[in-house]
Amino acid sequence: MKAEIVCIGTELLLGDVVNTNATWLAKELKELGIGLYYVNTVGDNRQRMEEVIKSAYQRSDLIIITGGLGPTEDDLTREIIAVATGRPLIFSQDLADQIQHRFNHFKRKMTPNNLRQAYLPEGAAPIVNRVGTAPGVYLKDGETIFVALPGVPREMKINFTEEVVPRLREELPAVEVIFSRLLRMCGIGESSMEELVKDLIQNQTTPTIAPYAGQSEVFLKVTAKASNRESAQKIMAGTIDELYRRLADHIYGEDEETLELVVGRMLHQQGQMLTVAESCTGGLIAHRLTNIPGSSAYFERGFVTYSNDAKIEELGVSQDVIQKCGAVSPETARAMARGALEHSRAQIGIAVTGIAGPTGGTPEKPVGLVYCAIGSLDDDIIVHEFNFMGEREWIKYSTSQYVLYHLWRYLCVRADTR
Amino acid sequence: MKAEIVCIGTELLLGDVVNTNATWLAKELKELGIGLYYVNTVGDNRQRMEEVIKSAYQRSDLIIITGGLGPTEDDLTREIIAVATGRPLIFSQDLADQIQHRFNHFKRKMTPNNLRQAYLPEGAAPIVNRVGTAPGVYLKDGETIFVALPGVPREMKINFTEEVVPRLREELPAVEVIFSRLLRMCGIGESSMEELVKDLIQNQTTPTIAPYAGQSEVFLKVTAKASNRESAQKIMAGTIDELYRRLADHIYGEDEETLELVVGRMLHQQGQMLTVAESCTGGLIAHRLTNIPGSSAYFERGFVTYSNDAKIEELGVSQDVIQKCGAVSPETARAMARGALEHSRAQIGIAVTGIAGPTGGTPEKPVGLVYCAIGSLDDDIIVHEFNFMGEREWIKYSTSQYVLYHLWRYLCVRADTR
Repeated sequence: MKAEIVCIGTELLLGDVVNTNATWLAKELKELGIGLYYVNTVGDNRQRMEEVIKSAYQRSDLIIITGGLGPTEDDLTREIIAVATGRPLIFSQDLADQIQHRFNHFKRKMTPNNLRQAYLPEGAAPIVNRVGTAPGVYLKDGETIFVALPGVPREMKINFTEEVVPRLREELPAVEVIFSRLLRMCGIGESSMEELVKDLIQNQTTPTIAPYAGQSEVFLKVTAKASNRESAQKIMAGTIDELYRRLADHIYGEDEETLELVVGRMLHQQGQMLTVAESCTGGLIAHRLTNIPGSSAYFERGFVTYSNDAKIEELGVSQDVIQKCGAVSPETARAMARGALEHSRAQIGIAVTGIAGPTGGTPEKPVGLVYCAIGSLDDDIIVHEFNFMGEREWIKYSTSQYVLYHLWRYLCVRADTR
Repeated sequence: MKAEIVCIGTELLLGDVVNTNATWLAKELKELGIGLYYVNTVGDNRQRMEEVIKSAYQRSDLIIITGGLGPTEDDLTREIIAVATGRPLIFSQDLADQIQHRFNHFKRKMTPNNLRQAYLPEGAAPIVNRVGTAPGVYLKDGETIFVALPGVPREMKINFTEEVVPRLREELPAVEVIFSRLLRMCGIGESSMEELVKDLIQNQTTPTIAPYAGQSEVFLKVTAKASNRESAQKIMAGTIDELYRRLADHIYGEDEETLELVVGRMLHQQGQMLTVAESCTGGLIAHRLTNIPGSSAYFERGFVTYSNDAKIEELGVSQDVIQKCGAVSPETARAMARGALEHSRAQIGIAVTGIAGPTGGTPEKPVGLVYCAIGSLDDDIIVHEFNFMGEREWIKYSTSQYVLYHLWRYLCVRADTR
């Protein structure tokens, strides 16, 4: 079954409203195992609606239309479905009574235009709307199914879940459902990652493998179609094992697992407390770590040592090091990490110093140069150098991402060697 | 000029990603006075992409395509534009050199598949992508303009604004354009704000006034249509003056001006340095303040004193106060602000302590209870109490928003009384 979504509403074309309906329906269709091939948005305009809905009628088996079901003159969805399928609009006394009943219930006066909502294309069934006034339309026309739902997200969702899903399930053969696992990676670019798994991607049949780029991270999405979750997991297992084997240094988590979540879990498991000394990230790393519920168990304290004075006074970095090597240098990063450890009760310390821009760069030390130090007092402190490009907020975010990635690597090694 | 957007990406059809690109572009087109008539989404599939782009070519004058410009086999946008317009793809040595240059800069190895991005349909100009690797495509084919941009929202936006808008402006006749001013408010709810300006909203003709709710802030958007910006400003001036008169305690900025930007500008103007001691916000306030370029001029240092030990050791809060009044109390907030001032070189200090949840709440001190202290050593330190509802990240964000709002109020009073 090939599905297509048509969203009606001029407000969507003016950018006033984000089209969350399409995203939500896409997810629901995926869960039902129905392939979605097209999403269209068009304004409340008779000619263009007709064009889009007629083209959907030609190429798709299930057409879900949202919006255009209200009581006003520019609510045209009912009419256009009738025109596209060559059916007359029929007045339903039942629907008219229901609409009247709702108005009575809310003690509001029904104006005559509301009766527009009591018309349906011949052969269509109404979709009961228990949370709003506009009833939807369910029409089976030969092999094609039309579903028209209100554009208000809340009404659309409830009506789809309660009224449409059960009817669609009846139409579908014992279906296969799509399951996916998203492998999340950091410390590698999209093209290098792809090089490493090119053969797997090229020879893919089932499961499928798709690469994506995120914000300073990359993803591989492994997808399988099966009758249930367990079978899908089995189909995917071999491929996923192979991806882990090839990309073990980079896959830090799956699905919704963020770096701060994974790192926090490992700190917790290893019974270690963390301290963070930040210069160019200005508190972002501490902020991300403390977004995780329960982070007070392993996040001890943070220092946002923006000025040189702060680096000297809070962390005990020597004036000498800053003057000789510069505030942005491997030496200062190392001294900051050491200072954070000495001035806290944490066992693991990280420190970051860099140039977030847009000003402050020099030919030797350009905007985007960042040093990060990770370690503990009874062990080595390792310094990493990064070169980022972009705007200030992007450099801050990329830095936080790479620092958390290297902290993850550090904690992995620690776990292995204990 | 009739515009149409085509978003390429199977991930959009699986509901993994909300299509924010379409909404953003819709807004931009509106600002340019260009009517948007269709938005389509289609997967990375040759046949369906060709169908959708050919139909756009038939009916629209400006076709903006996002996505499908990457280096992999399923990035087909360049190819499909060439097919739809009957033009061959031409290799550009210039583009190849630029791509190579970027890889050299990042010290990463360029894999051969990246050279796919060096091909353009004959007659097309590349759209320089200064924030990513995939160059876009700008093609004038008779009366039709094709614009292809990367799917990554950040790259798409920067490339559109910097590279596409200037070219489109040249194509457009002198049109009536819509201008808006967005008044940004904090410290007041949407309905209370609306009450204060209800008569203005009800009697609006031109300019129009529309209220919006943001994240712990509210907006009023004032809009006028005119042949140029100056006339629009004149049409709006009286209304805007009246709104400022009624909502002076809340309107902190306009359009893109965030609280952190406005507060930073005032600190800079007043020649004051700021220090921040954060418990429940975990670095978020420092992060937001340091997002502003040049913030090192007024942001001196921050303390993320998550543990009680840190509050005592870093800020000199007495064990006694924490034990008697609790870590989340007006007394601790005040002592934290005083300690931050005493342990830094800043003249103005803010401190935050609260319960971000989901655990840690009690009947007396529930999740969402937050105390914030603002002041200086030679002046009073004022404590504010907030009660937020919601999840951890929402409470953190709302706290940062209200703290920055009260800092703004504090700085306004300071400016007035000097």
